[in-house]
Amino acid sequence: MEQKKASIVSQLQHLKQQSGKSYTQLADETGLTNVYVAQLLRRQAQLKPETAPKLQAALPDLPKELVDEMMKPPLRSYDPNIIQDPTIYRLNEAVMHFGESIKEIINEEYGDGIMSAIDFFCSVDKVRGVDGKERVVVTFDGKYLPHTEHKTEHMVSRTRPLEKQ
Amino acid sequence: MEQKKASIVSQLQHLKQQSGKSYTQLADETGLTNVYVAQLLRRQAQLKPETAPKLQAALPDLPKELVDEMMKPPLRSYDPNIIQDPTIYRLNEAVMHFGESIKEIINEEYGDGIMSAIDFFCSVDKVRGVDGKERVVVTFDGKYLPHTEHKTEHMVSRTRPLEKQ
Amino acid sequence: MEQKKASIVSQLQHLKQQSGKSYTQLADETGLTNVYVAQLLRRQAQLKPETAPKLQAALPDLPKELVDEMMKPPLRSYDPNIIQDPTIYRLNEAVMHFGESIKEIINEEYGDGIMSAIDFFCSVDKVRGVDGKERVVVTFDGKYLPHTEHKTEHMVSRTRPLEKQ
Amino acid sequence: MEQKKASIVSQLQHLKQQSGKSYTQLADETGLTNVYVAQLLRRQAQLKPETAPKLQAALPDLPKELVDEMMKPPLRSYDPNIIQDPTIYRLNEAVMHFGESIKEIINEEYGDGIMSAIDFFCSVDKVRGVDGKERVVVTFDGKYLPHTEHKTEHMVSRTRPLEKQ
Amino acid sequence: MEQKKASIVSQLQHLKQQSGKSYTQLADETGLTNVYVAQLLRRQAQLKPETAPKLQAALPDLPKELVDEMMKPPLRSYDPNIIQDPTIYRLNEAVMHFGESIKEIINEEYGDGIMSAIDFFCSVDKVRGVDGKERVVVTFDGKYLPHTEHKTEHMVSRTRPLEKQ
Amino acid sequence: MEQKKASIVSQLQHLKQQSGKSYTQLADETGLTNVYVAQLLRRQAQLKPETAPKLQAALPDLPKELVDEMMKPPLRSYDPNIIQDPTIYRLNEAVMHFGESIKEIINEEYGDGIMSAIDFFCSVDKVRGVDGKERVVVTFDGKYLPHTEHKTEHMVSRTRPLEKQ
Amino acid sequence: MEQKKASIVSQLQHLKQQSGKSYTQLADETGLTNVYVAQLLRRQAQLKPETAPKLQAALPDLPKELVDEMMKPPLRSYDPNIIQDPTIYRLNEAVMHFGESIKEIINEEYGDGIMSAIDFFCSVDKVRGVDGKERVVVTFDGKYLPHTEHKTEHMVSRTRPLEKQ
Amino acid sequence: MEQKKASIVSQLQHLKQQSGKSYTQLADETGLTNVYVAQLLRRQAQLKPETAPKLQAALPDLPKELVDEMMKPPLRSYDPNIIQDPTIYRLNEAVMHFGESIKEIINEEYGDGIMSAIDFFCSVDKVRGVDGKERVVVTFDGKYLPHTEHKTEHMVSRTRPLEKQ
Amino acid sequence: MEQKKASIVSQLQHLKQQSGKSYTQLADETGLTNVYVAQLLRRQAQLKPETAPKLQAALPDLPKELVDEMMKPPLRSYDPNIIQDPTIYRLNEAVMHFGESIKEIINEEYGDGIMSAIDFFCSVDKVRGVDGKERVVVTFDGKYLPHTEHKTEHMVSRTRPLEKQ
Amino acid sequence: MEQKKASIVSQLQHLKQQSGKSYTQLADETGLTNVYVAQLLRRQAQLKPETAPKLQAALPDLPKELVDEMMKPPLRSYDPNIIQDPTIYRLNEAVMHFGESIKEIINEEYGDGIMSAIDFFCSVDKVRGVDGKERVVVTFDGKYLPHTEHKTEHMVSRTRPLEKQ
Repeated sequence: MEQKKASIVSQLQHLKQQSGKSYTQLADETGLTNVYVAQLLRRQAQLKPETAPKLQAALPDLPKELVDEMMKPPLRSYDPNIIQDPTIYRLNEAVMHFGESIKEIINEEYGDGIMSAIDFFCSVDKVRGVDGKERVVVTFDGKYLPHTEHKTEHMVSRTRPLEKQ
Repeated sequence: MEQKKASIVSQLQHLKQQSGKSYTQLADETGLTNVYVAQLLRRQAQLKPETAPKLQAALPDLPKELVDEMMKPPLRSYDPNIIQDPTIYRLNEAVMHFGESIKEIINEEYGDGIMSAIDFFCSVDKVRGVDGKERVVVTFDGKYLPHTEHKTEHMVSRTRPLEKQ
Repeated sequence: MEQKKASIVSQLQHLKQQSGKSYTQLADETGLTNVYVAQLLRRQAQLKPETAPKLQAALPDLPKELVDEMMKPPLRSYDPNIIQDPTIYRLNEAVMHFGESIKEIINEEYGDGIMSAIDFFCSVDKVRGVDGKERVVVTFDGKYLPHTEHKTEHMVSRTRPLEKQ
Repeated sequence: MEQKKASIVSQLQHLKQQSGKSYTQLADETGLTNVYVAQLLRRQAQLKPETAPKLQAALPDLPKELVDEMMKPPLRSYDPNIIQDPTIYRLNEAVMHFGESIKEIINEEYGDGIMSAIDFFCSVDKVRGVDGKERVVVTFDGKYLPHTEHKTEHMVSRTRPLEKQ
Repeated sequence: MEQKKASIVSQLQHLKQQSGKSYTQLADETGLTNVYVAQLLRRQAQLKPETAPKLQAALPDLPKELVDEMMKPPLRSYDPNIIQDPTIYRLNEAVMHFGESIKEIINEEYGDGIMSAIDFFCSVDKVRGVDGKERVVVTFDGKYLPHTEHKTEHMVSRTRPLEKQ
Repeated sequence: MEQKKASIVSQLQHLKQQSGKSYTQLADETGLTNVYVAQLLRRQAQLKPETAPKLQAALPDLPKELVDEMMKPPLRSYDPNIIQDPTIYRLNEAVMHFGESIKEIINEEYGDGIMSAIDFFCSVDKVRGVDGKERVVVTFDGKYLPHTEHKTEHMVSRTRPLEKQ
Repeated sequence: MEQKKASIVSQLQHLKQQSGKSYTQLADETGLTNVYVAQLLRRQAQLKPETAPKLQAALPDLPKELVDEMMKPPLRSYDPNIIQDPTIYRLNEAVMHFGESIKEIINEEYGDGIMSAIDFFCSVDKVRGVDGKERVVVTFDGKYLPHTEHKTEHMVSRTRPLEKQ
Repeated sequence: MEQKKASIVSQLQHLKQQSGKSYTQLADETGLTNVYVAQLLRRQAQLKPETAPKLQAALPDLPKELVDEMMKPPLRSYDPNIIQDPTIYRLNEAVMHFGESIKEIINEEYGDGIMSAIDFFCSVDKVRGVDGKERVVVTFDGKYLPHTEHKTEHMVSRTRPLEKQ
Repeated sequence: MEQKKASIVSQLQHLKQQSGKSYTQLADETGLTNVYVAQLLRRQAQLKPETAPKLQAALPDLPKELVDEMMKPPLRSYDPNIIQDPTIYRLNEAVMHFGESIKEIINEEYGDGIMSAIDFFCSVDKVRGVDGKERVVVTFDGKYLPHTEHKTEHMVSRTRPLEKQ
Repeated sequence: MEQKKASIVSQLQHLKQQSGKSYTQLADETGLTNVYVAQLLRRQAQLKPETAPKLQAALPDLPKELVDEMMKPPLRSYDPNIIQDPTIYRLNEAVMHFGESIKEIINEEYGDGIMSAIDFFCSVDKVRGVDGKERVVVTFDGKYLPHTEHKTEHMVSRTRPLEKQ
């Protein structure tokens, strides 16, 4: 199945290269973030029915059978060695070094919960710093999810059947 | 901070032992699942304000300063070596061997999403099998979370400021 | 041998896709849990003789030689990288964070023993929470196995021969 | 808790050394295997009520509070570095090199199942080989456990409640 | 040295707790991001001379010798087990799953280079999503650094001396 | 070379399957243990000249060139992931949990030495327990090897030449 | 994509071998360091437009399509097993053993910052030691990058939009 | 127990330092190899009864209770990080790079067997090379152990009892 | 022994801090490289007799017993987690990414051999780049060591004794 | 490149097998150690020009293009799993258990330095022990290399240029 995924990704990358468009251009044309478009073309996200026509409009050579494949839920994965690449390492470095601080601020601002990575947006933007130099901005924007209390009365799967055996 | 956590857990375990009550008894008295009570007494979950009096009623010797500590958001952690214990290993074995099947069924039943481990309940129950033998039932009950599409128009953190620089 | 297994699984997945049936539908038609059907079609469980006709009825295109293969005891295995997938990670997270609590409750309720992962059932069910939202329930149901005491008189393999050399 | 365990084990080892008895002698006096006695004195097994008096008879200096501790279900664990010791490495080497063969023979002789490590006996015996030289015999004797088929009708935890929601 | 760092961090955390101020409040009072303030109080960043008085104004009980310690360059580190915490894991998950896409977009937008993690800002912000629900925004903002070509004429350390031996 | 080994093993397994004989039957016909026969057919042991005719009698279709290959000393190896299989894991679990006890008993019974894994026998046997249930017995039987003292006078390789330089 | 990279590198190495030139000769002809030329021919660095003609002059058989490939930003990677090679291990050994000292000296000489590995040069030179023996000199020459203070007013991506929600 | 071992080793090292004798001198006085003496003083080997007086003669301040400890079978172990030390790394490097060649030569010279690490001698010697420079010679001298064939008739532990159940 | 080393290093660091001198100043006063001075004060290198007086002159408060300790050969080691620090990571990154290129250039320039890490110098220098910006130069300068051919006639340890047994 | 190496090694092994000669015979005919001959035929060492004719005389079917390949400096490597083989494991075990003792003896006998693994010989010899039994002797014979002091005046690469910038 991994091989099938690799073959689909390879075709998608080729199509994009043929189109001459960047991820950011494809993002503008489809109303998605640039990161999400890249994830779609690497089969790391599912193409939604209402978005498929927009992507097909942006990449007119995209064949129907690839669109069908892109609409299946993918098995999300990555090669752990990608952190060897300096760009990816530095993102990972930031998360590992700042992670505990970020967690504590979320707790202070909201309570005992997390930033969801599922109800989540990510984009990469170009900005110019106060010194006029180019900068990269990576934004992670996730829904706040509070840790639930495991109350028996709220646990539908349990309260009814098991307690009466 | 780890040492402080260990010291609090040790006091909480001692209090429970003094009370002579099991986790399931404490669960019945507090309206929580037995697993959640155990997590509270290991400082792996946060004691909520409305539940604090119930726990204090169930464990009358629980001092106020421990209650205060239990109401802080914990740093959740575990010793990776716990999978050496046969009970914990077999749970892990089940997840690793059945994981891909569980994922595919969730996808088939709901779509491209996951079972949340945050909006989540867990309990351990005793049942008797069809052969009359004792069995253990561990229930994981989590909210279904669909992977969001990263639409620019839905990404509040981004749409307004950055696009106009 | 791994390649042979992969090739069989690939054929089985193709057959299922052709049938248009979900794991839960196949489960209803065969009297098995949905997780177990998925394990059968991934060659992670053995097809029993009395169940083979039911599976053939549910998947009429299933050829005899695949049925023969499915009736052999499999070498159970998994790719350790599957925990990269968010769904599978969250199950693993729950086991690692709650594992010690689950173990202690089993000890309190039954004594010094474990939940078997061999005499074991697993299913995935859809429920609706008290807030009306969709939830996923994963149930692990295993026989309680007490750790035996190693009494010499009960150890048939030993008592007779070796003590008299 | 680990420190408490280490301290109890240290006291138990000291008591044994004071007694001047070997594990095999203690095994003969208590009706247990020598390996199990060693596990008891390392807090890797639970002392059963009916065996406690026999152990106290064999180790008269064993204090009541240690007996009480020994009767609790232990958290089983080991230091992964013990395989550095040549004796333990060679046992591990045998299991890793012969494991797949042993599994296939169990499958041939019994079907799709395993040798339990819970309903299990282990002993170490001295024998003399056909050449008259001393040999060590380690015996693993476990109940055969067949992998169950996950039949919905046999899954008590599920059949009744969840299907009717 | 690690112990000294741990002891300083413990004192700093205590001082903050006494002040009753959140990281975001301290950020507002010092003109720093909330993440950076948290890093300062965990000794993962260096306190700059011009900022020291602002921090002392915000935390009046901060003693001079701690300020002196905070002004030394720290050895940056983290406990690799922090990714067990669900909040930190999900950040890491996002980086590992989106990393390759982010890298490719940086390449498309700027060329062959990286986002610096040194000339870098990080903050955590509260926003409300289009559905009115609370969301967490983590912003990584780093200078774009192009990979230099290793031209001999630009390599001051080399051109002059070594070539003439 | 690994590929050649895999190809030979695959042919040997096919021959055995054609013969319809189990490892235990082949063991009876060749005078070897069932585990050793399985090791021979997985190229993890060397076929001895006097045993070759017996194996050829038991597997008449075994071609001469495979016999020649089986008589070479193999490079012994295993896939570390085999411990994912429940049968093999439980053997490994037993060794890791009981290893230190087994070592101490060997020391008590014989002195400072080990059980050889080279001058070694292994077999799998079926027994019936005192409760009449089927059990699996795995026997490890190895020569006792005492750790030698490194006496200079016994070290032939050293005493003569090097001391006089 | 890895396979494509491997195939390109293989062609580039063949071309170099055909040319009969060493990396140092190619470095002299192109004005680059010898290490950088080697990185270019292993697709670990990007060929810049103004350098392409120089490389083509030095390697006249270099086809246009390979030049095009070399001008794309590469995914930088390495096989972690290369540290098995004695030459590479000793470089790694030096970094690990001297790393902390090097860091402290950078801090003393410049302040809280690092040596960039992006704005960076590397070369290998031959020298003769004071004893007349041949020596290898590896020079790492990187820009000093100070850790920035995360001042809100300098964080362009943040100050404008998010604070007014 | 590890702490006790560390404390004994520390005392033994102190005694040796007080004596002013090198391992090689102690080796000459006791008739052991220098490596074995070092192992004894690090509690990695057992002191034999007939050797104890010789060691006491060589180290007159060695107290009786340490001698008693040294006569117990040790749990052999090492810190895996010792391969960071350049001397130990290079030995390891030699074994890993030459290991397969050494194995094949043993097979060619003796047959399918190994060099024992138990019936084994090790020494370190000073020699002068043909160029007159100082060299270190490490000699490993172990008994050749052939892999036994697992013949049922030779397996005393099995032939008699189990086959007749 | 590790604790003793840590305690000595802590005293040496304190002495240096009291002196107010940087590693580079101490290097100038002792005629050593700044990296080597730092290694000496971290007990990662041996203080030579002729250098001891120079170091004592540079650090007049250095007590005799510390000098004695510094003159012993150290067990060289490092904490593998130091690569978490950004400065040390980037050095490591450079070695891993450029390692294979450096090796090939050494082979081209000298033949089949390595750069020694034992007969080796290391220093950190400040330079100003062609753009006038500050840069860090780390120089590794090691003797070229050719891999010897293992000629029997050159192997003094072997030629004489063993061939005549 | 790995594949090319594997293909060359496979051809070399086949040639040796055709010749019917053992490594020790080839060693006698070429004047090399048996281990070195095995390394040459596994492409782990470089064939020197003056030795090539001797090897061609010993293996007359060795074609010229393989000789050319064998004369290139190899990338030395090994499969880390080879330590699964019992022969190679026991060598590794000896190094890890005796390593610290060997290091200390080298320090005592020579000073702060190491045994080179580059200016190094290795051979395997057959001897007969004092009990008349066959033994294997593995000899490691390496040049003693003292750790150099990093004196600025001896560091040719540095003293001249950098200090005057």
